[in-house]
Amino acid sequence: MISQFKYNADGLIPAIVQDAATKRVLMMAWMNEQSIRMTLEKGLMVYFSRSRQKYWVKGETSGNVQKVKRWAVDCDKDTLLFEVEQTGGACHTGYESCFFQELDSHGLPKPIEEQPLFDAAKTYAQ
Amino acid sequence: MISQFKYNADGLIPAIVQDAATKRVLMMAWMNEQSIRMTLEKGLMVYFSRSRQKYWVKGETSGNVQKVKRWAVDCDKDTLLFEVEQTGGACHTGYESCFFQELDSHGLPKPIEEQPLFDAAKTYAQ
Repeated sequence: MISQFKYNADGLIPAIVQDAATKRVLMMAWMNEQSIRMTLEKGLMVYFSRSRQKYWVKGETSGNVQKVKRWAVDCDKDTLLFEVEQTGGACHTGYESCFFQELDSHGLPKPIEEQPLFDAAKTYAQ
Repeated sequence: MISQFKYNADGLIPAIVQDAATKRVLMMAWMNEQSIRMTLEKGLMVYFSRSRQKYWVKGETSGNVQKVKRWAVDCDKDTLLFEVEQTGGACHTGYESCFFQELDSHGLPKPIEEQPLFDAAKTYAQ
């Protein structure tokens, strides 16, 4: 099945990641066939970073790993959905979700009502 | 803000669509700057079809429109999330969500436990 997914020209497929308990959408990132296999083997989300061209175990640096609870493929086999148990926040900015910036009906940013879950500067410092 | 989103080389940005009430992820599709503006103007999801290279008002044929309730952009400004009020099913196969095919920890398809919400053959017949 994994080899039958529709990968793009770069061999990648988008993965939507959702909190298994609250159903909040946490992030979207890209996977390739090998990172999907690594994810299933570890039980933790492993992405392929387009900018760094390398595998990326989510939470490797921050400790904010994503344990896979359920996953599904869409009708076109070109998008994946993972439900995860998220440790800490999913976003590198410190927020729970990467989608913390809500917009209004004109496309303007609304005030952010939530607080970051961790201090990104501290977490990602060397 | 809309002009500052990070569109890919084809001028497109992925949009994740979630049911505003149940939080179920319904589908992912692509938008361009103009389809985002059309969406905000109509209050209904308008995508840009990569295969047909045209604007696509979701529900135009099936009646299964998606009324926008909330939307957000992610931290990298390269992915959108829309919460919608979905009429009927979102998937062209008749299912509520395009992610009806759950997979197991080996990547094999699990039995589908839900039923389609509408008869796709009838809905899309000319």
